[in-house]
Amino acid sequence: MDEQGTSPGGLTRRRLIGAAAATAATTALPARANAATKPKTAAAAQSATADVVVVGAGLAGLTAARDVVAAGRSVVMLEARDRVGGRVLNVDLGNGVVTEGGAEFIGPTQDHIAALAKDVGVDTYPTYNTGDNIYFRNGMASRYSSSGPLGPVPPDPTGAVEAEKAILQLDDMAKTIPLDAPWTAPNAQEWDSQTFETWKLNNLVTPSGRFLIDVAITSIFSCEPRDVSLLFVLFYLAAAGNESTPGNIERLVNTGGGAQERRFVGGSQLVPNNLAQRLGERVVLSQPVRRIVTEGGTVTAIADGYSVTAKRAIVAVPPPLAARIDYQPQLPALRDQLTQRMPMGTVMKVHAVYPEPFWRAAGLTGQAVADTPPAQVTFDNTPPSGRPGILMAFVEASAARQRLGASREALRRDVLKNFSDYFGPLAANPTSFHVSDWQEEIWTRGCPVCFTAPGVLLDYGRAIREPVGPIHWAGTETATFWNGYMDGAVRSGERAAREVLAAL
Amino acid sequence: MDEQGTSPGGLTRRRLIGAAAATAATTALPARANAATKPKTAAAAQSATADVVVVGAGLAGLTAARDVVAAGRSVVMLEARDRVGGRVLNVDLGNGVVTEGGAEFIGPTQDHIAALAKDVGVDTYPTYNTGDNIYFRNGMASRYSSSGPLGPVPPDPTGAVEAEKAILQLDDMAKTIPLDAPWTAPNAQEWDSQTFETWKLNNLVTPSGRFLIDVAITSIFSCEPRDVSLLFVLFYLAAAGNESTPGNIERLVNTGGGAQERRFVGGSQLVPNNLAQRLGERVVLSQPVRRIVTEGGTVTAIADGYSVTAKRAIVAVPPPLAARIDYQPQLPALRDQLTQRMPMGTVMKVHAVYPEPFWRAAGLTGQAVADTPPAQVTFDNTPPSGRPGILMAFVEASAARQRLGASREALRRDVLKNFSDYFGPLAANPTSFHVSDWQEEIWTRGCPVCFTAPGVLLDYGRAIREPVGPIHWAGTETATFWNGYMDGAVRSGERAAREVLAAL
Repeated sequence: MDEQGTSPGGLTRRRLIGAAAATAATTALPARANAATKPKTAAAAQSATADVVVVGAGLAGLTAARDVVAAGRSVVMLEARDRVGGRVLNVDLGNGVVTEGGAEFIGPTQDHIAALAKDVGVDTYPTYNTGDNIYFRNGMASRYSSSGPLGPVPPDPTGAVEAEKAILQLDDMAKTIPLDAPWTAPNAQEWDSQTFETWKLNNLVTPSGRFLIDVAITSIFSCEPRDVSLLFVLFYLAAAGNESTPGNIERLVNTGGGAQERRFVGGSQLVPNNLAQRLGERVVLSQPVRRIVTEGGTVTAIADGYSVTAKRAIVAVPPPLAARIDYQPQLPALRDQLTQRMPMGTVMKVHAVYPEPFWRAAGLTGQAVADTPPAQVTFDNTPPSGRPGILMAFVEASAARQRLGASREALRRDVLKNFSDYFGPLAANPTSFHVSDWQEEIWTRGCPVCFTAPGVLLDYGRAIREPVGPIHWAGTETATFWNGYMDGAVRSGERAAREVLAAL
Repeated sequence: MDEQGTSPGGLTRRRLIGAAAATAATTALPARANAATKPKTAAAAQSATADVVVVGAGLAGLTAARDVVAAGRSVVMLEARDRVGGRVLNVDLGNGVVTEGGAEFIGPTQDHIAALAKDVGVDTYPTYNTGDNIYFRNGMASRYSSSGPLGPVPPDPTGAVEAEKAILQLDDMAKTIPLDAPWTAPNAQEWDSQTFETWKLNNLVTPSGRFLIDVAITSIFSCEPRDVSLLFVLFYLAAAGNESTPGNIERLVNTGGGAQERRFVGGSQLVPNNLAQRLGERVVLSQPVRRIVTEGGTVTAIADGYSVTAKRAIVAVPPPLAARIDYQPQLPALRDQLTQRMPMGTVMKVHAVYPEPFWRAAGLTGQAVADTPPAQVTFDNTPPSGRPGILMAFVEASAARQRLGASREALRRDVLKNFSDYFGPLAANPTSFHVSDWQEEIWTRGCPVCFTAPGVLLDYGRAIREPVGPIHWAGTETATFWNGYMDGAVRSGERAAREVLAAL
């Protein structure tokens, strides 16, 4: 782990899953499902047959495989990376300290990731949220309570009031969105004809109100308000709930009571890792699928050194990567053009490590909202033991795009300047500094999730989950609850497994 | 050629270029350039070396190859299809009648495609534009002159006046766009923060004014006004000119004096076909490039059965297809994310063939503008001989998307209903009917050109032409004049060749 940081792919424990781990924890699964794969050891091309081939061993694919296996059907998974977890990735900060390079939080109504974590023995603990947050704007830091009766309200009377009004308005609009078909909402055409930026400019007038809404959008989507459709924003916040609790924007952005409420003991990647352990040899790593051939009643996924022929396939990778697989026969045009229109957001996560979380002694949560790029949203990512202290920040949207491929030293300098502005001079000298740049990850190519520009949901939305012959689609981008989150990934895997099992 | 139509790939003469044609017309080229390739005959994988490998034998790639060869350097081109021309494709309507399934027109200031056509011996003739156009709206057809002093002005006083005012406003805004860097325009941020639809709703109030502007946008981009950034629209119309003549929207949409003014005798594909004949065996067909490897001072393009190692590569395929090549090492993140954000438009071209162009006798040009999908913009595509009569229509944007994968019989019925509404009952019974569906073309996946949604030019525009090591980018999407047109493709090939020659 070098001081300047590397891409997340370089930071994980390698080959966690493989021949040595393959026999662990598979006893609870039906015996029939155990013999489907050959161990991935030889260099020559190997092949296997199974009832179902799953492409991509992130949470969606792993969950789908779990359910297919539980129903007594055989599965082989082909994963491009030498690890499982996709956008869920533990990062080793040295000395046994683990944090997350990607998805890390879990919150209320995220029932499916919660159930999975419980099932695979991963506990949660509260995100540190005691004391005051920092609001840094126009060069001045001010404090505000992280736990007011209305949730945390930044100390900016004009902006906060206007932003709160806008949020209630968005929540109301979101109530009209059918989650499985947002393009059929009564105002779908109007809302998918404009950027979120246009809506913001038409509905907020104060610079600070607009600023607060900007921060909400960039921190949710890792894109600029101008990049994303108003309809997609409304769909996404409507999806931040479950069957009995409507979604809203507060649940997306809040720590206490919101999507950032809790974290996973040992790091979120323990969830996919433990699930993969159960699946054992069914998970074949380092096999990027290049081609999927449907013929004669079977579907074959062909990777560089491994091919799997099955009755059904579940492709559980994000749309822009699914687009890069060579399908024979080619996919329907509507599906192909959809995948030309679902770009990934842009985000780097940065971590600074200190001997202790010094900000806590000053009564600070470590959470900041700021108008100063690159680090405009921060969290206390200190492990449950309370040592070492870790400040995490998201570098998002334009702030990230401007720094793609740029000097890591300059990024470190700029982030530490931000941290010092927010939390005082002790922040200037971390013991180490780490960058997780998802744009450099060849098997993700951005983070946290795909979004759509105006017009895409209206004309292409219906292709997002529609199976193509024996090919089914999973991944958090296909979820109708918690789209873009770990919970959505798990739900999408469960849904894809149901589709496949109904067809087998 | 079946009555119901097939995809354009099925309609061309196969293997026009190959061993039999390879020796033709190469004598004017430097001898050094002739021996670079091996003939593509064996089934086993072949390899070649050259100074430059060109990926994609559309107009851009062919032009680049021409210029590299003319400078005494060797070239091998790898083309995925079994033909050259890309989005330029002759369609055989039977009985020796040829029309175009893709790009067909040439107009004033398109000097580079004009020079190329002249060089390879392809003449032009005027698009039929004598008499009145049809304006069909709210169920009623009316006629208007195709050659008024202000150009053709639809007979809708309210709408025409308002649309004309909007057009002048757009032309004025376009004058502020630097063609090589539209993201640096003084109002770039404002204009790239909104859809064209938002601008339209804010600047036009009459339904018929908005309708006329809608038709202009969908016929230029084959996308909906809600899909595309205002800044991109302004860039595109600013690019509809040359070094001495500023672009404007009139030149894009007009027939007389505009981009639809003339056509190519024998069909536009004769231009790339004739150029490819000159390049001879350097053009290797049916070799989709899957991987491009840069190492040790060379770059190798690897297709299914052929690989070429060179000093420089020119990738001359549209961005969404360039994204699907596996680059080793991977491309910079900014470039990769750009290619996630440049979708292809959506368009089918339909042709109905009649014994004669019966509408001419009625004083009609065969050109119509209508509010009735699917065929809302039509042309007289009759060959210069005047027989048979051919009506062509573009089916675009949502009208096309709704019909992707749908019944060809229903499309034929709906188009012929449109044609009958516009040109009378004789239009109901063509002798044949043909559909060119570019969305089904696996090596194009849409047409006529890629566009950008809001936010993309601002944050990603600078990656469109920037070379990556020895890899250079061509294609009409990289052009600064006549972006999206054949002329832009030719210009982009010339520019890429200059880059490569300067580096060799």
